[in-house]
Amino acid sequence: MAADDRQQVTNIVCEFLDAVSRGDRKSILAHHDDKLLMFDFPDTVRGLKDYDDTWDFFFDSQRGPITFEPEELLATVGDRVAFVSCIVHCDGTTAGSFRFRLTVGLVKCDGEWLITHEHHSVPAKEDTFVMPDKREALSHS
Amino acid sequence: MAADDRQQVTNIVCEFLDAVSRGDRKSILAHHDDKLLMFDFPDTVRGLKDYDDTWDFFFDSQRGPITFEPEELLATVGDRVAFVSCIVHCDGTTAGSFRFRLTVGLVKCDGEWLITHEHHSVPAKEDTFVMPDKREALSHS
Repeated sequence: MAADDRQQVTNIVCEFLDAVSRGDRKSILAHHDDKLLMFDFPDTVRGLKDYDDTWDFFFDSQRGPITFEPEELLATVGDRVAFVSCIVHCDGTTAGSFRFRLTVGLVKCDGEWLITHEHHSVPAKEDTFVMPDKREALSHS
Repeated sequence: MAADDRQQVTNIVCEFLDAVSRGDRKSILAHHDDKLLMFDFPDTVRGLKDYDDTWDFFFDSQRGPITFEPEELLATVGDRVAFVSCIVHCDGTTAGSFRFRLTVGLVKCDGEWLITHEHHSVPAKEDTFVMPDKREALSHS
């Protein structure tokens, strides 16, 4: 790993999130690979065009200044492959203030780090994933 | 990347999933790092002890033979860092048959690949993440 790979990878993820905060659609895509695979909240998204479209939905729901800030960012960086995990605090849309979990996968191509994978999720609250004893308690609440 | 790193990484993820199918608790943990960070369905889990406990919950909900099979597995493998994405078909618990998205991050330590990160999620169906026009339609359905 080159001395500055960790910094480059961290910067790319932070600049991507900052571009969302600023509503800078071009910069959101600045380091994303054409063949990106994204596990988005509602579904799986393949390729940069469909990925870009998901931001139409996001910005359609904007109701004020956007917050899109990483917390607990952890970068694992090799010579050619890296992954980053963090919690993202999002605010400023119809969804209100909430936190989601983000994992980003990156590959170094021709000396440049590119995002090839994103996994976004909110904790599942469906009854399906509640402990059986808690489900029992919930059914009586 | 050594010639067989891709195969080793793929095998570790497939053997982990197969260990879940077989209910082999020891093998589930065979290639997990002590400091694992897991974005689990309901919450964030840190460390191997708490990770192991999540499988108590899983197997408590068992109602028949477990299916835990990867589909569309994609491995991105470098010299020392790798990540894998796949869809997992799960069946045999109180949750019934469903598919979830899995991202696994791995690091090579002393010649051995270890899982240091997992991100599990089901697509979010909350009203929050439904397109505004679809939300309108749903409210009238």
